[in-house]
Amino acid sequence: MAKAPVLTPQAEDFPRWYQDLITKAELADNGPVRGTMVIRPYGYGLWERMQQEMDARIKEAGASNAYFPLFIPQSYLTKEAEHVEGFAPELAVVTHAGGKELEEPVVVRPTSETIINDYFAKWIQSYRDLPLLINQWANVVRWELRPRVFLRTTEFLWQEGHTAHATYEEARDYAAHIHRNVYADFMANVLAMDVVLGRKTARERFAGAVNTLTLEGMMGDGKALQMGTSHELGTNFSKAFNTTYLSKDGTQELVWQTSWGSSTRMVGGLIMTHGDDHGLRVPPRLAPVQAVVLAIKGDDAVLATVRETGERLKAAGIRVQVDDRTDTPFGRRAVDWELKGVPLRIEIGPRDLENGTAMLARRIPGGKEPVAIDGLAALLPGILEEDQALLLSQSRERRESRTADVTTTEEAAEAAVAGGWARIPWATLGTEGEALLADQAVSVRCLVAEDGSVPESDDAPGTLAIVARAY
Amino acid sequence: MAKAPVLTPQAEDFPRWYQDLITKAELADNGPVRGTMVIRPYGYGLWERMQQEMDARIKEAGASNAYFPLFIPQSYLTKEAEHVEGFAPELAVVTHAGGKELEEPVVVRPTSETIINDYFAKWIQSYRDLPLLINQWANVVRWELRPRVFLRTTEFLWQEGHTAHATYEEARDYAAHIHRNVYADFMANVLAMDVVLGRKTARERFAGAVNTLTLEGMMGDGKALQMGTSHELGTNFSKAFNTTYLSKDGTQELVWQTSWGSSTRMVGGLIMTHGDDHGLRVPPRLAPVQAVVLAIKGDDAVLATVRETGERLKAAGIRVQVDDRTDTPFGRRAVDWELKGVPLRIEIGPRDLENGTAMLARRIPGGKEPVAIDGLAALLPGILEEDQALLLSQSRERRESRTADVTTTEEAAEAAVAGGWARIPWATLGTEGEALLADQAVSVRCLVAEDGSVPESDDAPGTLAIVARAY
Repeated sequence: MAKAPVLTPQAEDFPRWYQDLITKAELADNGPVRGTMVIRPYGYGLWERMQQEMDARIKEAGASNAYFPLFIPQSYLTKEAEHVEGFAPELAVVTHAGGKELEEPVVVRPTSETIINDYFAKWIQSYRDLPLLINQWANVVRWELRPRVFLRTTEFLWQEGHTAHATYEEARDYAAHIHRNVYADFMANVLAMDVVLGRKTARERFAGAVNTLTLEGMMGDGKALQMGTSHELGTNFSKAFNTTYLSKDGTQELVWQTSWGSSTRMVGGLIMTHGDDHGLRVPPRLAPVQAVVLAIKGDDAVLATVRETGERLKAAGIRVQVDDRTDTPFGRRAVDWELKGVPLRIEIGPRDLENGTAMLARRIPGGKEPVAIDGLAALLPGILEEDQALLLSQSRERRESRTADVTTTEEAAEAAVAGGWARIPWATLGTEGEALLADQAVSVRCLVAEDGSVPESDDAPGTLAIVARAY
Repeated sequence: MAKAPVLTPQAEDFPRWYQDLITKAELADNGPVRGTMVIRPYGYGLWERMQQEMDARIKEAGASNAYFPLFIPQSYLTKEAEHVEGFAPELAVVTHAGGKELEEPVVVRPTSETIINDYFAKWIQSYRDLPLLINQWANVVRWELRPRVFLRTTEFLWQEGHTAHATYEEARDYAAHIHRNVYADFMANVLAMDVVLGRKTARERFAGAVNTLTLEGMMGDGKALQMGTSHELGTNFSKAFNTTYLSKDGTQELVWQTSWGSSTRMVGGLIMTHGDDHGLRVPPRLAPVQAVVLAIKGDDAVLATVRETGERLKAAGIRVQVDDRTDTPFGRRAVDWELKGVPLRIEIGPRDLENGTAMLARRIPGGKEPVAIDGLAALLPGILEEDQALLLSQSRERRESRTADVTTTEEAAEAAVAGGWARIPWATLGTEGEALLADQAVSVRCLVAEDGSVPESDDAPGTLAIVARAY
């Protein structure tokens, strides 16, 4: 009789597979307040690595980290009309504090454009203060009706960048720079995720933006996930908050702004991109643990070799963990590391010692083979890079094979409902077609140019719409 | 006529000096909601370095980072009687969210013992799951009546550790390990702050703890600042949340717990320990910028040398920043770097180039001297370590010279009110003396043994009380 699978198979029930994986790989739990989540150490380790890699790229782009308050006076939200309309239904409101009712209720930040502009208006005096490039790592709250761990949670962790520039062109170029050189670079080269870079239609734009750039990934079930966005805010917030600067010519000018964000939702995207029926597969460049060295049994010679091998691999620059918990059956530990998606398992038992070999199990392509223990430190870096590349190419292949070129709105809807993406000329679809798709819970994920670049405007000739169901 | 000082002198008005420094060095601003703060990039850079150094030590102590929700059901807080009594007056409460009144109001976390125990109770099954060592970096909210930036803010950033152990001894030892090997090590060796390690009296203990270990620093005005605490929680929370484990003997046992925290308040402590009338002085090991290379004037040869020197120092492992903003007067920039407390300034102008020298200004001991540009990379590391040591010894000297050994409660109160610390036998002072001190806003900061170690209990023979006014 076949063993019952550890996870519900993806083909049987993808959402349940996702939830099973998150629970069994100990990534996260649901919180006690509806829609909140507890991120467990292994899940948080993935997020910490994402933070490190993103933070380095954000600093490379010239931005500095800062911290703005969690609580925003309710009146701030109403200063930018589209912004408040977009966020009002999702706000959490503190009405009582310190044992008293507050005179003015305060809102728990859903995003920080308003409070940050309040300070930008104070800090920016002259052209010498520009560009002002700020990033914040923080928690934000948006009350979710249909929460799902990592993907849509009432509270989530993110980074939000906020910048002010002297000219429209500078702001536009900076939003594009973040889009491509921070977000896309990180997603392709660290997360090993193929993402499509495009611009949002007016319907899908951020509340308060004049242009939203997005990165869309295709998940294992063919649905789309928005992995990050970078917005041109024009002068919408600087008008509302009177954020002006003295130009070189001595005139007072409004600043041009951008904002851009990416969140713990990326952990959900990672799972749904690389996970399989045995669990998660973590790209080696991201992995907090790239290789685990397992003692099969608790014999002294085995334990000594396992620990020594761990030390040698660590010295070779590999992020390694030693698993010498031999009071837990080996099989259970092996399944657990497989669930957690650690790229490489190096299994050592008494018989291996005799031959000077270990069993090397590769989670990403699958398969096991004996290798010389002495050769591991030289062997593994190349294997890790191979597996990193494999994940990216699998992700690209999926997206390419499951994207259909279509010519009518009906065909686009059909392709999306069937679990794929459709590519259709935007001139054919248009805002009317977009509205029709919405009735079937299908949306335009983004607009792209024929050559795959990001179009300069919605009506640039040859613009294509990527159509899909989305998380 | 003498120039007006940039800051209110410490001797004239210490609190105003503190506020002046924070504003003028661009460390932080007050937030729009009472008691909240905006941490500006330079202030946040100090916090980021604190986080890095602390995080490495916390991981070295075996704890893993995780993340628990901001929102806690109000009912959780009431499960541990002393805990709710301690925190109830400071809570911020969300009553409305998503456009509706909530059925059960949720509290914004003031600390996370309750919600974390809810999960520990689920995750811990057997002795194999112990010890469970968790840390969280997060924001917390405690409504403050008398807020002061960094020291007492309605919202602050911190790390909170939470652990569960099989025995009382293990928990006690772990709380002490964090106290000494994480907190004290970091404060002495990175912050260059002399801190006294001791235990809190019952009156000053954390709400829900059976023992609180503390680290107390003496500020520039002689008042005390609690820099961090590590608590033994005994089984108070495990009883309240039924957090039990199956022992090796097959019995169900309550876990023994610890919690420990340190916060952005440390930035306030840093300022008040090392700051002087010219601004902040940042210890080199902490400093995000250890040396700034300034171009005095914008001549091409000067700019080239300044940038090249910056590159060479960076290559030598020094955290360096180049200041080539020659459209701002040199004097203003020099004062600004002095205010910000960057340890070393390397000033290069046209005349220096002729001699192959730069002017080296040392912020910590003060003073300026010409040095050979070619010798800088070899010279600076030693100077930085010297200055690090100097700050620690100055901090120690202040504490020693301003601590009086006294024998009566009256003398203790007098010493504290005059702006110093008093050391008095705890057997002489006792809880009655402690209550009398409270009438004059003086408190027992901690209990120490005669040899400077941490006493095992309040009534260990020879125990001394450190008495002071405190922030």
